[in-house]
Amino acid sequence: MDDNRFTRRTAIAGAAAAAALGSAQVAEAKKRKPHKHRRRALTRRADVIVVGAGLAGLTAAREILFKGKSVIVLEARGRVGGRILNHDIGGGHVTELGAEFVGATQDHINGLIDQLKIERFDTYDTGQNIYYTNGSKFTFSDTLPTGAAPVQLAPEAAVAITQLDQMSTSVPLDAPWTAPNAAEWDSQTLYTWLKNNSASPQFMGVASAATEAIFGAEPREISLLFTLFYIAASGNESNPGTFERNFNTRGGGQAQRIVGGTGLIPARMAQALGRRVRLHSPVTRIVQTRTGVTVHTDKLAYHGKRVIVATPPPIAGRISYEPGLSALRDQLTQRMPMGSLMKAEAVYDKPFWRDQGYTGQAISDVGPVKVTFDNSPPDGSVGVLMGFIGGTEARRLTQKSAADQQAAALQSFANYFGDQAKSPKEFVRFNWTTERWNRGCPVSVLAPGTLLDFGEAIRRPEGRIHWAGTETSTYWNGYMDGAVRSGERAAAEALAG
Amino acid sequence: MDDNRFTRRTAIAGAAAAAALGSAQVAEAKKRKPHKHRRRALTRRADVIVVGAGLAGLTAAREILFKGKSVIVLEARGRVGGRILNHDIGGGHVTELGAEFVGATQDHINGLIDQLKIERFDTYDTGQNIYYTNGSKFTFSDTLPTGAAPVQLAPEAAVAITQLDQMSTSVPLDAPWTAPNAAEWDSQTLYTWLKNNSASPQFMGVASAATEAIFGAEPREISLLFTLFYIAASGNESNPGTFERNFNTRGGGQAQRIVGGTGLIPARMAQALGRRVRLHSPVTRIVQTRTGVTVHTDKLAYHGKRVIVATPPPIAGRISYEPGLSALRDQLTQRMPMGSLMKAEAVYDKPFWRDQGYTGQAISDVGPVKVTFDNSPPDGSVGVLMGFIGGTEARRLTQKSAADQQAAALQSFANYFGDQAKSPKEFVRFNWTTERWNRGCPVSVLAPGTLLDFGEAIRRPEGRIHWAGTETSTYWNGYMDGAVRSGERAAAEALAG
Repeated sequence: MDDNRFTRRTAIAGAAAAAALGSAQVAEAKKRKPHKHRRRALTRRADVIVVGAGLAGLTAAREILFKGKSVIVLEARGRVGGRILNHDIGGGHVTELGAEFVGATQDHINGLIDQLKIERFDTYDTGQNIYYTNGSKFTFSDTLPTGAAPVQLAPEAAVAITQLDQMSTSVPLDAPWTAPNAAEWDSQTLYTWLKNNSASPQFMGVASAATEAIFGAEPREISLLFTLFYIAASGNESNPGTFERNFNTRGGGQAQRIVGGTGLIPARMAQALGRRVRLHSPVTRIVQTRTGVTVHTDKLAYHGKRVIVATPPPIAGRISYEPGLSALRDQLTQRMPMGSLMKAEAVYDKPFWRDQGYTGQAISDVGPVKVTFDNSPPDGSVGVLMGFIGGTEARRLTQKSAADQQAAALQSFANYFGDQAKSPKEFVRFNWTTERWNRGCPVSVLAPGTLLDFGEAIRRPEGRIHWAGTETSTYWNGYMDGAVRSGERAAAEALAG
Repeated sequence: MDDNRFTRRTAIAGAAAAAALGSAQVAEAKKRKPHKHRRRALTRRADVIVVGAGLAGLTAAREILFKGKSVIVLEARGRVGGRILNHDIGGGHVTELGAEFVGATQDHINGLIDQLKIERFDTYDTGQNIYYTNGSKFTFSDTLPTGAAPVQLAPEAAVAITQLDQMSTSVPLDAPWTAPNAAEWDSQTLYTWLKNNSASPQFMGVASAATEAIFGAEPREISLLFTLFYIAASGNESNPGTFERNFNTRGGGQAQRIVGGTGLIPARMAQALGRRVRLHSPVTRIVQTRTGVTVHTDKLAYHGKRVIVATPPPIAGRISYEPGLSALRDQLTQRMPMGSLMKAEAVYDKPFWRDQGYTGQAISDVGPVKVTFDNSPPDGSVGVLMGFIGGTEARRLTQKSAADQQAAALQSFANYFGDQAKSPKEFVRFNWTTERWNRGCPVSVLAPGTLLDFGEAIRRPEGRIHWAGTETSTYWNGYMDGAVRSGERAAAEALAG
């Protein structure tokens, strides 16, 4: 669990801390350190206790505060942000090791960003994309797969995607298990459906690349019904979700990035919440009584009328509950494993691929990196290539040495953008799977049968316990927008209760 | 988590305690109670620390002791036995709420039973079995499905079972992911394969009944490769596994029962281990150093050279490990959910179905109970019907009131054995899904993709940590025989290390 320790320390200790936490927060943290006992004196009673200072938990806390109620946020780590994490690349620039994109129809995260006076910029998207298959490189001029994708792929992909989009329109977002074909669709894997609807190994290769980046998993691990739900969720109340919006930059979920990095979002939220956010406070036990709830960390107990648990489902499942949760809820958390995802980032003097007419976006059926983006800072003064390593590729690579991991990732970059990619100024890879408080990324991946029998327990409160986190969202499940939506919903529930 | 509390208390406090724990052990426990401080004085150092006093953990401890090494077993509950639990039905008789059958090729559990001088008797199996479908009752004279099963079912079932048995012969038990067709078989659910190989809704209904009883899950939740592994594992080194042995009484896994109940097995083992078994000691944290391992409970720390974790995988996954486990192991335990299983038992003055020429065995496509057995004590002086409620049926029923659960289960018994079944002397249902230290039963159920990418982490030690439990066994995985085998293997590993 600690092979990310070095990277984390660097990020926290370095100049990035100021960017990630907000300099006022850092100053406050420093000030607090010598007075260890003061913590005991802090109020340990609030209307609502929130577990987890990721985007969902911070949003919930913010909403509760806005409504004039008191709140305490308990965070296991020494930082806020959960699956959001800035990384300093020097020269005043940052890149992101976790969630980084925002896009069309993601109104809730975009609204929050505006409120926090944080700026967006367009993801670099000028030039040709690369499709790499079987050792050969093809270029295409639009985002995969509905545009002018290479002839090797396009017709089949277009047909399959259209069909999936069409099927997804019959999946009710708040209850996918009630879709007319729910039983059939939740009895098979995405792989089974793809295989029955496509003959080409090329297409299966691209499908794997897509699910590795989107879910950190292979098509064989994912229920077809869950896939259709995920597609349908990639929109908002007036724009039905589509697979393309899930995958694309222009007009899609990857359309924009954040000036200063996404780390600014939780940092500013935490700054506003001040000492209501308690770091280094992993929750071990939640005890409900008729009148309230007590949330225990190793050392202290916090009392509230309600609690919002805003952690990834496998983390929520590791807390002890008294009385125990319903059988359905407990077994649901046994069935929401996190995907397997690493991010590899290489920093260069310049975004050299731009001069060659490339967007920096590649999709490939050869790993370990199968999907890339241009992750350079807004002014393009230095170049950053970012690659997703997900699913089987992540599980294989995690067993290799750090040097082998780096060499393999850079070889992928070189396959797409030439040998120049092999000599970065800096290379960083972040493995979300070994993070104790995440246990994987980007999202819980549901196998066949889970939605059908356990789906109704995803958001259903258990007495005074409410559930937040992007996995509980009906829209943009798995994305920052879903996390914000879930925090808003859970806060409203807790305040109404 | 505590709707089984009443039943458990009864079992522990009542006369069953003597049967379940061995009277010497009970006397010892009573003696110990007033001297709470004495516990601190007990040795907290041993060559090997074992976590979990189920059959696997107790077997490991026994083996270690036999080899002249010291051992301490830490058990979370106030009883030993894990998924094995006797229940007193009065008149000196017991029935079992958990594991109960032993059978052909289960040499390791049978050998242990002989060593403990415990007696077996044949599962009652004289007369006609019942097949209930669509509100109609058919009888057949042999065990399903290879015998003279009803014409409505037999030809199709026989073909499918033969094919599955055949396919299973190519699955290496110690590495199912290396089977020639592993990728294809671990990319689809059992449901997908059944549907592609059978057109009849009757057969699909019986398939569900079978997987609900065997796995506590539906065919849609189970990887085809895992199913084939499970079939292949239903044998020993000289008799390849077959589906029939998994499901049958005569000549199968359900051939025999235990005089005095299976609870005698862990009770006698614990008795021999004496105060080496520490009850009420849930393990929270395992810390490895270069020279040893420290196992923490809430109050005490135990030191050993090695530790054997012999709990169900989702329980093992809830322990904190320092240093953290490998990514593969941690994510594996996120992907080994326990099945959903309840047992319903009705006690009657007499086994009245025997007089009507029935074995007491039924299989049905109508729930909640879809598979039954005659669970009467050896002399048949009182009658006990036992029914499995698994998979979707368990998940639905668990949300009903106790009265509704009882009425529904007795209606199932009445469907098969007549209205007399509706008026038992006693009714007990045990829900393994709400048991905090099991979180489900009878076994971890693997969805597609898990064996392929994570299988190699199932038994692989993590430094000084060794893994036991029936889920780690190559033979009779999910059965008591597998638990015993796993304990033997883990003990050998720990002693060799």
